[in-house]
Amino acid sequence: MRIVALAGGIGGARFLRGLQAAAPAAEITVIGNTGDDITLFGLRVCPDLDTVMYTLGGGINEAQGWGRTDESFTVKEELLEYGVGPSWFGLGDRDFATHIVRTQMLAAGYPLSAVTEALCDRWQPGVRLIPMTDDQVETHVVIDELDTGRSDGAGWSGAKRRRAIHFQEWWVRLRASIPAESIALVGAEDAKPAPGVLEAIEAADVVLFPPSNPVVSIGTILSVPGVRAAVAAKTVVGVSPIIGGAPVRGMADACLTAIGVETSAQAVAELYGPELVNGWLVAEADSGVRVDGMEVRSRPLLMSDPEATAAIARAALDLAEELA
Amino acid sequence: MRIVALAGGIGGARFLRGLQAAAPAAEITVIGNTGDDITLFGLRVCPDLDTVMYTLGGGINEAQGWGRTDESFTVKEELLEYGVGPSWFGLGDRDFATHIVRTQMLAAGYPLSAVTEALCDRWQPGVRLIPMTDDQVETHVVIDELDTGRSDGAGWSGAKRRRAIHFQEWWVRLRASIPAESIALVGAEDAKPAPGVLEAIEAADVVLFPPSNPVVSIGTILSVPGVRAAVAAKTVVGVSPIIGGAPVRGMADACLTAIGVETSAQAVAELYGPELVNGWLVAEADSGVRVDGMEVRSRPLLMSDPEATAAIARAALDLAEELA
Repeated sequence: MRIVALAGGIGGARFLRGLQAAAPAAEITVIGNTGDDITLFGLRVCPDLDTVMYTLGGGINEAQGWGRTDESFTVKEELLEYGVGPSWFGLGDRDFATHIVRTQMLAAGYPLSAVTEALCDRWQPGVRLIPMTDDQVETHVVIDELDTGRSDGAGWSGAKRRRAIHFQEWWVRLRASIPAESIALVGAEDAKPAPGVLEAIEAADVVLFPPSNPVVSIGTILSVPGVRAAVAAKTVVGVSPIIGGAPVRGMADACLTAIGVETSAQAVAELYGPELVNGWLVAEADSGVRVDGMEVRSRPLLMSDPEATAAIARAALDLAEELA
Repeated sequence: MRIVALAGGIGGARFLRGLQAAAPAAEITVIGNTGDDITLFGLRVCPDLDTVMYTLGGGINEAQGWGRTDESFTVKEELLEYGVGPSWFGLGDRDFATHIVRTQMLAAGYPLSAVTEALCDRWQPGVRLIPMTDDQVETHVVIDELDTGRSDGAGWSGAKRRRAIHFQEWWVRLRASIPAESIALVGAEDAKPAPGVLEAIEAADVVLFPPSNPVVSIGTILSVPGVRAAVAAKTVVGVSPIIGGAPVRGMADACLTAIGVETSAQAVAELYGPELVNGWLVAEADSGVRVDGMEVRSRPLLMSDPEATAAIARAALDLAEELA
C-alpha cells in the first residue's frame, strides 16, 4: 500500500510513528511543511522536517516533542555572549550540526529536497520525507503591537503599530499571545512542489492528514500550487486536530481565529471541505459533527501512547479502505 | 608609546601577553595573519586571529594554546555522524559560535576587519587586533604524495603525485610529516592591507616581530603588498623563533626547509635581512649570531611563564629604544 501523509511538526510526527506501527509494510511518503522554516545565525532551520526526521529516526527529545535528545546549549549561550540572538529559539548543539550541514549543502547548490534526503540517510526514518517545495515559502503573521516607546524618549505612545513578523517569532517568542490579524504565506504563489511531491500523491492509495495544524501546517502545504488539486483527486482521510473545542496540542486555535474559523472539529472539517477530504476522524466528544459528502467517524483521538496512536492511524486507514 | 606587532597564533599570542605586561600604558596594534584561515562546514575559521583574541581576552585553553577553555565537541561529533568532516580539525562548541557569528557577518557584507572588531567587543583583548587583509589570502603547501591506489583497483602504483593542499591540512592533518616542496600564498599578490594596517605601522614608534613562524605567519603578513615597505621604514625588533637550531614551538623547521632556509637564529635573521629588521633578539645559545647592519642581543627566550615572557618583551622594547 502506498500512503502519502502531509505533516507539520510534533503532532504530525507522532501520528506518523503510529502510522508506521499500523501499516508496517506500507510505503509511506511524508510531504513536510516548510512554511515554518527560518534562517537563524545564517543557518537554515527547518523545524517541521527535523521534528519528523528526529521523531521517526529515534533522535527526538520525547518529553518536549522537538529538538534532540540529550541536548546541550553551549553554542547558543556563546552566541548570546557575543550579543547575537535571538535568545527565544531553542537551538541545541546537536541540532546546530543538522542546520550547519543543511546550510552548507544549500550553499553548494543542492535543493532542500536533496538536502533532506541526505540528512535522512543518517536518520533512516523509514518513510520518504520530502519538503513540500524547494522554493522559499515563509509563513508571516500580521499583528498589531502597542508601541513600546518613542524615539524622543517620551515613553509609551499608546499607539498601535501593525507589522508582519515571521511565524516563529509569533509562535515561539510571543507564544501566540498577540492575536494574529492575518496570516500570509510569503512566496507560496510562485512556489513549485518539490520533485516527487505530485508523483507521490498521484501514486498514492490514500492521502492522510494527521492532526497537524490545519492553517499553518496542512494549509501551507496545500497552498503550494498543484498540491491541493492533486490531493483532491485521491481518497483523503483527515484526523481532527481539535477535540471538544480545543487543539490536541499547540495553539491551533489562535491560527484558526486568525482566518475566521471556529476552533471545532466541525469547522475544520468545513474548512477542508468534502471536495478535498472524504473521511474525517473526530473524537468521541465530537461525534455530532456532520458534513455533507464527508464520512465522519468518531474514535478516541488522544495520542497518549504509541498503541493509542497506532489505533488512530489504523482507524484512518480502515476508513480510507471503506471509501476507496 | 605606539607599538605594532605582527602575529601568528600560539607563540605570537603568548608574546603579546608578555608585551602587555611589559608596556601596560602602550597602545598596541596587532596585525594578525589570515593566511591560515579556512572554510570548514561552510563557516569561516580564522585560527590565528582567534588565538590572539582568546589568549588576550582570557578565553584560551591554556594547556593546548589554541581553542576555548572548558570546551565540548558535540557539534563536531554530530557532523561526523552525518558523515561530514574533516575530523582532523578540532572545532569545539564554544569555538563554533565564533565562526557562526563571523560567517553571518561576512555574509551580510561586513569585511573581516569589522567582524574582528565586533568579536573583540566581547573579548576586550586590550590591543587593537586587525587582520592583515580583508581579502582572501590562503597559504597552500605543495607536496608529493604516494599514490595510494589506482582507479583500476590494481593497488599501489608507486608513483608520486604532486598536489597543493591547504596549509591547515598539511599542518594539522599531516603534522607536516610530508615535506613541503614549496609554499604558495594564493591571492596574496592582489590583496590589499586591511583598513588601519598601514596607518598603524606608519604611526608606530616600534614594530615587533614576536617569535611567530617566519614563513607562514610573519612572512605571510609581509607578503601583503605595501606592508613590507611600511614596516621597513620603521624601527623593527624581532624575537628569534629558533633556539639552538630548533623551533621554540610548532614546526617552523618544516616551513623553513620548504623555502630553503636553515633552521637557525642566524638563517632567520638573514631571511628577514637588515633592511627590514634592525634589532634581533636571540637565545643565549645563539649568542654567536652576527648579521651586518643588525643589532643582535642574546637573552633567555623561552616563554616559560608570564614573567619570563614579559622580560623578553621588555628586552625587545629596550633594544628598540636604543636603536631609535
